[in-house]
Amino acid sequence: MKINYPNGPTKEKEIKRAHTHGMLFEEAINNTNEYYRNKDLAYIYKKPTPVQVVKVSYPTRTKAKIIEAYYRKPSTTDYNGIYKGQYIDFEAKETNNLSFSFTHIFSHQLKHLVDVKRHGGLAFVIIFYKKVDKVIIIDIDKFMELYDIGLKGGKKSIPYEDALTNGIEVKRKYAPPIDYLEAVDKLYF
Amino acid sequence: MKINYPNGPTKEKEIKRAHTHGMLFEEAINNTNEYYRNKDLAYIYKKPTPVQVVKVSYPTRTKAKIIEAYYRKPSTTDYNGIYKGQYIDFEAKETNNLSFSFTHIFSHQLKHLVDVKRHGGLAFVIIFYKKVDKVIIIDIDKFMELYDIGLKGGKKSIPYEDALTNGIEVKRKYAPPIDYLEAVDKLYF
Repeated sequence: MKINYPNGPTKEKEIKRAHTHGMLFEEAINNTNEYYRNKDLAYIYKKPTPVQVVKVSYPTRTKAKIIEAYYRKPSTTDYNGIYKGQYIDFEAKETNNLSFSFTHIFSHQLKHLVDVKRHGGLAFVIIFYKKVDKVIIIDIDKFMELYDIGLKGGKKSIPYEDALTNGIEVKRKYAPPIDYLEAVDKLYF
Repeated sequence: MKINYPNGPTKEKEIKRAHTHGMLFEEAINNTNEYYRNKDLAYIYKKPTPVQVVKVSYPTRTKAKIIEAYYRKPSTTDYNGIYKGQYIDFEAKETNNLSFSFTHIFSHQLKHLVDVKRHGGLAFVIIFYKKVDKVIIIDIDKFMELYDIGLKGGKKSIPYEDALTNGIEVKRKYAPPIDYLEAVDKLYF
């Protein structure tokens, strides 16, 4: 089990780290989606973070300035769109631990992904295990199997080794930084 | 051409008006989407309004308060999701005029809908003509035909009569208030 880089990060690893550690994971996915759009491969976007606006002021006549607002819980997942004629929907998570805890994902988000899959869409969770520098996608049905084991008193998290066994690792590149559609192809097509 | 209700609104019309005029159009669509979800018919959500957060304060240790933020231009459209295994994507617009002006929709939103349709999704614009109390969906390809006529020096808006000819009228009901999937069925299935 390779937890860290005993001999220090290699050159290639350093680049990867720059692409994900340095850059936020979210930003790396957003750049990837932009790359996909530019190549006309897929139209997938991050949904804006929901904000409840309470007070707005108008310092100039043209521009509204929000002066009181609060973050709200997202209704669904982070990302959705269309790929190869299919509806695609996923939640992106990162963890500093070697195991991804189920407490870090909302149950209503999982329900949403289950509903999507049942209706014929592609639905998964993509997890970035920072410590081992691995990005892995897990289909929602598989994810729920592991989740249910946790509910029944078993493991309440997914160690990255289990993620690798149950999911597909996403290769990282210069462009796109997180080529998750390659993994999606392996998983669904 | 019935522009207004010469004999005053009938009882049925009053109900319809309460369902759309009283309630915001957006709220009526959101309620409709909730109805669809509860019936397990479709999973379609409004995307949150994008907000650029500039300053956040922490008056209590648990809750973040946004104290400076601005509305941003949406990247894509208002609504998307899955219906009958298909990716569905649309923009909702309302107008106080008898004709819907093309200046009220962003060209990048139209491009997005065109991309979605080309990739096999269902993509359309739904317009609420308040004055005549009509809700009409127009497939994006049809919409672009009319749009291009405008670009070539023709009509730069869609009168509601043209919308009726080129689109499908959405029936309004108690529940769901704006049953647009019935119109989607007619248009695409």
